Amino acid sequence: MGEENKIYISYNHIHKMCQDIAPKIKEFKPDLMIAIGGGGFIPARMLRTCLKEAGKPTLRIYAIILSLYEDLGTVSTAEEAPGVQVKRVQWIDYDQSGVDLINKNVLIIDEVDDTRKTLHYALSELEKDLAKQCKEKGGDPKNTKFGVFVCHNKLKEKKNNYQTISHKRVDISQKMFQILGFVILGKLMILNIIKKCANCKVMIYKKQGTSS
Amino acid sequence: MGEENKIYISYNHIHKMCQDIAPKIKEFKPDLMIAIGGGGFIPARMLRTCLKEAGKPTLRIYAIILSLYEDLGTVSTAEEAPGVQVKRVQWIDYDQSGVDLINKNVLIIDEVDDTRKTLHYALSELEKDLAKQCKEKGGDPKNTKFGVFVCHNKLKEKKNNYQTISHKRVDISQKMFQILGFVILGKLMILNIIKKCANCKVMIYKKQGTSS
Repeated sequence: MGEENKIYISYNHIHKMCQDIAPKIKEFKPDLMIAIGGGGFIPARMLRTCLKEAGKPTLRIYAIILSLYEDLGTVSTAEEAPGVQVKRVQWIDYDQSGVDLINKNVLIIDEVDDTRKTLHYALSELEKDLAKQCKEKGGDPKNTKFGVFVCHNKLKEKKNNYQTISHKRVDISQKMFQILGFVILGKLMILNIIKKCANCKVMIYKKQGTSS
Repeated sequence: MGEENKIYISYNHIHKMCQDIAPKIKEFKPDLMIAIGGGGFIPARMLRTCLKEAGKPTLRIYAIILSLYEDLGTVSTAEEAPGVQVKRVQWIDYDQSGVDLINKNVLIIDEVDDTRKTLHYALSELEKDLAKQCKEKGGDPKNTKFGVFVCHNKLKEKKNNYQTISHKRVDISQKMFQILGFVILGKLMILNIIKKCANCKVMIYKKQGTSS
């Protein structure tokens, strides 16, 4: 895919997108945020500011780290190649943090939804955690709602279990996924450039050093 | 402290700061990054892009979450009040991630160094982890280097153990701490405003909803 099919966008656009979606997310009333790192870190932190309401506690951002998109241990290519395996690197430490998922509205944040594999993995694992917690402490998993916010939902067929991610418990996500936003990090950010291509269906990371 | 003593800065400035410091951090040769969340998330993710070198693996960002600055469970005030206790909310899961600190160059990233309490806690706990790992697996803790990057080092007396944080094993941090940068998140970001005050010694978060 050539340069003409890429879209570059600034941090400010991502922040603006977080601001725009914040009222909708406030309707969801999130109790906690779970950022899928590293890509979810920036939108999660921005979104937390946009969700902040005077007189109410700041939302906690928990971080989970999965290795699908990380491309670790391999050399970089010009285009970001999705990994084939999802591997847990870091997860919520329920004991240490004292948090559980029972009766909570849980907002999951990631940067890009490509094949939906990462999101599916994260959500299904969180649902397992929830089921376990409900069994141990008592509670109904149906009282927990998961919402998903991604900056950019790639307009492509989702390989894995679209229904699982988008069933009614994840009601917010269907609306979220309509939002076309994305995160590109690199030197162009500094220039605040946005370059649009009407036919663009896939966004690629602009990496430092891959081109100038 | 009045409005005139605040400094607002854009995401792009933070990114630029990361770019400027990247060559210095590359000399440190970090093997892994540890972001102190939520504040460290944005600079860590930006910095990772700036540290990326073609043909080399992307650095992994691990997240640790401490509660000193989070001000959770209390209502917000106009100014960010440092907490009195450091509490672990999330930590590196060495077993799950398969990582250890032995013979590594570890780059810790946070947003603001105020009293140095959080950084001191994080570093001293990581040193304990390292000692334990060296004992179990064999290794010399002296072969591990910790570097610290903070966006903004507040120009004030550090209450806790300055020497511990700044001893020679943390050689990079002393240089890092000379950099005056900072992170402010809020609507002004969108406007790309930077407002400088020569006498400003303390930065305050600009929070959504606290003023317009």
